Amino acid sequence: MEQNAKQDIKKKIPFETIKRLSLYLRILKHQKQAGKENILSSEITKYLNITPEQFRKDLSYFGSMGKKGVGYNIDLLSSNLENILGIYDESKIAIIGIGKLGSALLAYPGFFDFRLKICCAFDTDLGKIGKTWEGIKIEDISKMTAIIPEQNIKIAIITVPAEFAQEIAEKLVSCDIKGILNFAPVDLNLPKEILVRNVDMASELMTLAYMVQKI
Amino acid sequence: MEQNAKQDIKKKIPFETIKRLSLYLRILKHQKQAGKENILSSEITKYLNITPEQFRKDLSYFGSMGKKGVGYNIDLLSSNLENILGIYDESKIAIIGIGKLGSALLAYPGFFDFRLKICCAFDTDLGKIGKTWEGIKIEDISKMTAIIPEQNIKIAIITVPAEFAQEIAEKLVSCDIKGILNFAPVDLNLPKEILVRNVDMASELMTLAYMVQKI
Repeated sequence: MEQNAKQDIKKKIPFETIKRLSLYLRILKHQKQAGKENILSSEITKYLNITPEQFRKDLSYFGSMGKKGVGYNIDLLSSNLENILGIYDESKIAIIGIGKLGSALLAYPGFFDFRLKICCAFDTDLGKIGKTWEGIKIEDISKMTAIIPEQNIKIAIITVPAEFAQEIAEKLVSCDIKGILNFAPVDLNLPKEILVRNVDMASELMTLAYMVQKI
Repeated sequence: MEQNAKQDIKKKIPFETIKRLSLYLRILKHQKQAGKENILSSEITKYLNITPEQFRKDLSYFGSMGKKGVGYNIDLLSSNLENILGIYDESKIAIIGIGKLGSALLAYPGFFDFRLKICCAFDTDLGKIGKTWEGIKIEDISKMTAIIPEQNIKIAIITVPAEFAQEIAEKLVSCDIKGILNFAPVDLNLPKEILVRNVDMASELMTLAYMVQKI
């Protein structure tokens, strides 16, 4: 395939597909640890509330990887997924707001599997600035616009209170941040080319509460 | 409409639609606070990376609510959405695992808008059991199977380490929990009728990192 054609295909892959690939990869790792060598698509999808067809469709963006009836060799599929997701390269992350949620994320063990590295943290609290938590020195938020471009960081996590989130997000965009994971319960209004994912715990819980009533 | 037909329709409404309704509601509240009376669909959807068509389709499950050109009366639409989502009733929530993330959630202000109330918390740590955090007494995890049915709680948040999540989830199911918000980076294998939503921070970040590379 031509390089350009390849890139065009990659651009068209939906966000949700990429997210599911990372979930497949984690399941494969757990199954491998449990001693399995091969796996059927249905053994992967039963953990994720999706159909085997969805799983095969997700993989089909990247060519066929399994054999009918036999399923998938776990090592081979894992290594293919790691290549696709590019997780041999470490991704550097900045986090803004070291309150309760921010400090929980600093200590969160789940990032390690995917080589995601929080490498700088910012806050406004003079009692926290200059201290080192989980190996990360907390910097004054006023230094954000210097440190983030200097370290060539492109991804940031926002864990500030809702009323400051928009202002912080705009500052991050001015630091050439391209992707934001937003935990503040507020919807950010940013240029279209900035990727924003909202982790909205209240709305997830609200939806569960609604669905449970309907069962 | 007949009651049965109405219920059939409600059952078919996708999870993602309900989640978006709660996001619309939050935007409406913020716009009202900012002094607006009416709003166009495009003014709502610009915050959410969805099309006005998607917004109108979501509302169409419940009948028409706006006027072409004029848009939506904010008070009326908010009150309709609150009725649909049933947020006049408080939803009681249990949380299992009061580590860093669990205690951040105990203090999370975003639940209040939707009348979500964490009303019991469990942990295994003797240093925490019996103490009161954020107005909630932390109970021994062994009391879970007594307290949850007693308080008729149907929704739980799991914030225990990954290796304990499956076991805890099964115990929750035995307590008649119907919906689980899972923060442990592991995929739960539970009976189909249990609603599980995974808040997978690593996989969200991983996906952002992938997409940012492709820009």
